[in-house]
Amino acid sequence: MSNGGKSLSNKRVAILIEEGFDSFELTGTITALRNADIVVTLIGPTLKSTPKDKLGTTTATSELAAGKASMKDFDALVILGGHASERMRLRHAMVDLVKDAMVATKPIGAISHGPQLLISANVIRGRTLTCWPSIAIDIKNAGGLYVDKPVAQDSNLITSRKASDIPSFTEALLRALEQSTTDQNQP
Amino acid sequence: MSNGGKSLSNKRVAILIEEGFDSFELTGTITALRNADIVVTLIGPTLKSTPKDKLGTTTATSELAAGKASMKDFDALVILGGHASERMRLRHAMVDLVKDAMVATKPIGAISHGPQLLISANVIRGRTLTCWPSIAIDIKNAGGLYVDKPVAQDSNLITSRKASDIPSFTEALLRALEQSTTDQNQP
Repeated sequence: MSNGGKSLSNKRVAILIEEGFDSFELTGTITALRNADIVVTLIGPTLKSTPKDKLGTTTATSELAAGKASMKDFDALVILGGHASERMRLRHAMVDLVKDAMVATKPIGAISHGPQLLISANVIRGRTLTCWPSIAIDIKNAGGLYVDKPVAQDSNLITSRKASDIPSFTEALLRALEQSTTDQNQP
Repeated sequence: MSNGGKSLSNKRVAILIEEGFDSFELTGTITALRNADIVVTLIGPTLKSTPKDKLGTTTATSELAAGKASMKDFDALVILGGHASERMRLRHAMVDLVKDAMVATKPIGAISHGPQLLISANVIRGRTLTCWPSIAIDIKNAGGLYVDKPVAQDSNLITSRKASDIPSFTEALLRALEQSTTDQNQP
């Protein structure tokens, strides 16, 4: 369904960051979203936290603390992989943001190990997902239906396997945001 | 039960290694086992593979390829954590070694993220385990009973949470090896 050429410039997307993120995933996602005039906000464990990427060479800076963030202020949530999602699982405020996005049926994008946070939020039972292959069994044990493809979309859940899937991943995410714009404009 | 002062010098323990291992866990475990005169063999994805530890500063060298290893040649198996177990899950030969050790009821020690490999081998249903807290939910989803303590022992399964649990972990492992010696000497 087309959005009739509507701009996505009124949209806000939250990206969760933590120590050990994959910098290709972060950069690729931010670039695609900003190219569509979307406002991107990096959410960390605290305000101005500065996690390093998994290679220890790049640093990101969070603009908002997870505990102060509300999904009411965002149209979609993105969970990056690398070693970051492993740490996000232990952050209750981050797990709660995932639960809130699910309840509001807002698009949630999770890539590589990102779906670990979906497991911790207990939101994947009966849902079709993809992920980095090492956690496929954890997805299945949590009740998810694992598929191996560049992007899997099941309602508001958009998942990908790895950094090289970023083009498919961001395309699906943008389409979901366009769709939500169209839905909002329905009579 | 005491082993009556029997030596453990006839015992052989296999330690699985892969890229991203925790060097404190590796060094601590090797030291404790060698102090008890146990022969330690490092098993990697290939012979003479040289994985780096998770900080990228230490390298270990494998003495045997997982595909060439047989649990018949070892009295116990150790699975280290860090980011290594995440990679081991994708090595069928390593998953098979875990299954073989379970069938033979030989002691299996797994620390921090090491229990991820136990999940992949599908051997924890109804068993009590501990692990690094971020994967506790994966343990529960796989049918395991998660406890938070320095060492959990359930029959041949010995698990610990983190590098600082190594003294409790190796003590339980040595006790299990002594026990198996005693059992072998039963009439």
